[in-house]
Order: sequence, then structure tokens, then C-alpha cells
Amino acid sequence: MERYDIAIIGTGPAGVSAAITAKIRNKNILLLGDGELSKKLGSAAEINNFPGFPKAKGEEIAAAFLRHLKELEIEITKARVNAVYAMGKYFSIQSSKGDFEASSVIIATGVMQGSLLKGEEALVGRGVGYCATCDAVLYRGKEVIVAGYNDEADEETDFLSQVAEKVTYIRVNEGKKEDFAQNVSVVKGKPVEVVKDGSRVKLLTSTDEYEADGVFILRDSISPGQLVPGLETEGVHIKTDRQMKTGISGLFACGDISGKPYQYIKAAGEGNVAALSAVSYLASIKE
Amino acid sequence: MERYDIAIIGTGPAGVSAAITAKIRNKNILLLGDGELSKKLGSAAEINNFPGFPKAKGEEIAAAFLRHLKELEIEITKARVNAVYAMGKYFSIQSSKGDFEASSVIIATGVMQGSLLKGEEALVGRGVGYCATCDAVLYRGKEVIVAGYNDEADEETDFLSQVAEKVTYIRVNEGKKEDFAQNVSVVKGKPVEVVKDGSRVKLLTSTDEYEADGVFILRDSISPGQLVPGLETEGVHIKTDRQMKTGISGLFACGDISGKPYQYIKAAGEGNVAALSAVSYLASIKE
Repeated sequence: MERYDIAIIGTGPAGVSAAITAKIRNKNILLLGDGELSKKLGSAAEINNFPGFPKAKGEEIAAAFLRHLKELEIEITKARVNAVYAMGKYFSIQSSKGDFEASSVIIATGVMQGSLLKGEEALVGRGVGYCATCDAVLYRGKEVIVAGYNDEADEETDFLSQVAEKVTYIRVNEGKKEDFAQNVSVVKGKPVEVVKDGSRVKLLTSTDEYEADGVFILRDSISPGQLVPGLETEGVHIKTDRQMKTGISGLFACGDISGKPYQYIKAAGEGNVAALSAVSYLASIKE
Repeated sequence: MERYDIAIIGTGPAGVSAAITAKIRNKNILLLGDGELSKKLGSAAEINNFPGFPKAKGEEIAAAFLRHLKELEIEITKARVNAVYAMGKYFSIQSSKGDFEASSVIIATGVMQGSLLKGEEALVGRGVGYCATCDAVLYRGKEVIVAGYNDEADEETDFLSQVAEKVTYIRVNEGKKEDFAQNVSVVKGKPVEVVKDGSRVKLLTSTDEYEADGVFILRDSISPGQLVPGLETEGVHIKTDRQMKTGISGLFACGDISGKPYQYIKAAGEGNVAALSAVSYLASIKE
């Protein structure tokens, strides 16, 4: 398997900035994220304090970022990252497009919107999962619930319906797709709590209760402690120093996930620092 | 005297970013610096990693910054700051354009190029000064040496020649102005050391030795410990935390002066954080 020098997870201002600096330092990089960069950035009505872009729409800054990536021939690998494992001398990155390896990793995923469901954290791996692609096989011929917060959950539900006996798809937001397989029932609801009940799991919404063999919770981002097992966190943030180093050697974090203020230009600045720290780290392990 | 909410010292990417964010948070700001923004930025041949500006010349980014400042009606007060004094509830800023007062201060001056002269630090205020405008009166009818590292030193020399008996102007770089008063002798040289000799001071260049009653050393920036008496420093850097706070309440620092890496986008990100921290500080002292 190709081993990248630096894998960058996230394509908001932090991830883009990290990718740009890593690339001009001639590193072999893997930029993982959403093809349309950051949804938050692209949909911002007006951003007044990204220096050099007076009164800019978020989409204008996003377009300038995309031009910059293109100019430097940086491609975005469109994949959802579900877990990053520190393997000692490298990192294994588990994604919806398969596994990747990199000598160092920069996490720039933004912060998770909203909070975890009640009971969620305790049930991860015991009935609660975040990656249908990865774990669907565990539910062959069984019943699963999908709590979907984004459009990608449609695809995951589709995939699960081919494997599982029955899928209950709880849509948190409005969805577009309607033509699901017959074994999928789509309902609207606001998930509140997950409860273990023997070998089964219950998902409680604000109005209803559903039961199945497993629950997939599909949000735009997952909490850092779930993304990288063993990572030192502070609430929803990854603990970093001024050089954007985390508690795991070779792993860096930048942007909103490394702490407040949640600002585009702060995130871009930290992405640059994280990239240079990763470059230094790569030099140190070569010695 | 008008008391500003936030005085920002320096007009590189850090100072500009701080000014922009402070202004959109409706603060009454004073932006002190060089009218042409940062010389380092403006003269950079090519900057590849300021996201949104692929393959940009420094002057293009500087022009975009100036448009941004204009759009927000932020004016630059062209003045050299010689000292910042923490007065308890406010700061007094001593500059070449007179004194200013502000409730909080953000230092974004960049790092001093090169190092101090041998003997310089020990003689500050004892024959060595940094502001002719401030201290010329001490040398009425006496002899002074100007060690000038920039074009502004021409003006300072002119001013001193009206007060002092004799001015020896040691130009470190090429200068433009030639028509000085008769009591000014202009020489080229590279200052190396200052030595106290009774009531007189000697300045040694790499080739010659000059003697006078006082020496003015006029660089593009002065070291942080000289700029703000009592400030906690780490070498040429001001010690700050992640929120860009210094050891003095209400005083913030950002950009190159707060530490490496010396990168435009990192400086801009820190300027944003410093401004938001100053905004929080202002809210806290109002309570």
C-alpha cells in the first residue's frame, strides 16, 4: 500500500491551508474530505475578516481555495474518515473509500455540530457504529437503525438495505432521496438517546422509540475521541500545543477542532503551522 | 486625550488581521504602522501558501489587504512606536507622532531583524536611545551619533541637526537623501558595538570608531523588552498563550513577534485571535 507522507483530514480552511503548505514543501500528501470543501464555509453569507477578501461570500473564498488547490495540483479524495489508528511508525486511516496509510496525520475536521446522544459514548462498538461501509457485514440478515444527519446517510442506508434484513432510517433533516428498497422504512425524527437492551439496542427520538440489532449514527463529523482512539481531548476539542502537536507523536490537529475561536483565518493559520510541524516530524523520523 | 479601545502596533498580516476583526466587532481602534504595510510582505517575490492567493506576489496580497482596510474605513496612523507603558487601567503609547492612549494593545511589530549591538542593552537610557523625536532635547548643543538602518533615520537626523551641535550619521544601508545640514556628517558603516566612556559614548563599526554624547539606534523594529518595559520575553519573542495573551493584562501579541514559524497566514490567524481576546478583555473590564 502506498504510504503518504502526510494525510490531511478535512477540507475547510485549516485542511486546505495545511495541504497547500505541505505541498509546497514537496510532501506526498493525501487530502481527504468533501469535494465541495467545507459546507460551513461555502454557505457563509458574508465573511468580513479573512484578510484580503473584503465583504466576501463564503462561496467566493471557497472558490479561491479551490483555484489554489488546482494551481498546486492538489486533489481531494472524497471520503469519510471513520477512524485513525496510530500503528507506531505510521497511521492507518479507515475511510468510506477503504484504508490508507500515512507517516503523519493532520486532523482538520472541524468540530462536531451538536452533542452526543445520551448513552452514545458508552455503546460505541457495542451496538453503536459510525460507518455502515465498514460494519455492515456484522448485520447480515439482521435489523439496523440509521440515524442520519446528512445526505450521505442516504447512500449508507442504501448499502445497508442490501445486507441487513430491515433498515429503519431516521432522518434528522429534510432528505432528497425517496426511492429506497422495500426493506427500508424512512421516518423523520430527532434522536435523543441510545439504550442497550440485552443483545438489542433501542434508539429513542423526542417522540418515538425504535429497536434493532445495531444503530448507525451518521453525522458530518464524529467526536475526536471516537476518530482517534487514545487521543487526549478537551471536551469536543483535541488538545494541542502551539505547534499543533497532539498527545500522539506524528499526529497534528488544527482549526475548529483544536479550539476556539471558530474563525476561518485562525483555522488557516493553524493549518500552516500544523503542516510545518508535520514536515519537521517527517525529517525527525528519517534520521 | 482620546482613549482608543484597542491600539494595534504593526501593519503586517498580523496587525492588519487584528485591525479588521476588531473593527467588525465595532471597536474604536488605532492602527499604527508603516503606510505601505509590511516591507517584508510588500517585497516578497512570490508567496504560495496564503490560501486563496495562488502564486501571488507579496505586493498583490498587500494591495488586497489595503483594499480590505479601505472597505472597512480603517486608517493607518503612520508613526513609529518607541514604547508602550502599562498604566494600570490603560496603556500609554509613545510614538514619533506623539502619545496615544488605549484600553488594550496588540503588538504585531514582527521580529527585529538582526541582533542587538554588543553593549547596547546595558546602555539603553544611559547614552543609547531609540527615539530622536522623544530625546533630542537631552542633546541640545551636544554631539550625537545616529546609527540608521532605514530611510526614516534621514528625518530623525534632520531633526537632530536642528537641536544638537553636531550629528554623525552612520548609514547602514544605501540612502537617498543627500542634502543634510552642515553640522551633519554622513558616513557608511556597519555598527558593531557601543561602549560607555565616562560621560561619552563610543560607537564602533566594523572599520571605524566614533564618539559623542549620545547614540540613537534607528531600526525598523526594536526588541520587545525595550518596547514594553516589564514584558516577559523568550529571546526575540514575546511570550504568549494560545489566546495571544502576554504576561501583562490587556496586552496581546501576534505574528512573528509571538514566535515561529514566520509565516504570513499564521500571523494573520493570530491577529484574529488577538483581536477577539482584546474584545473579551474590554468586556471584562467594563463589568
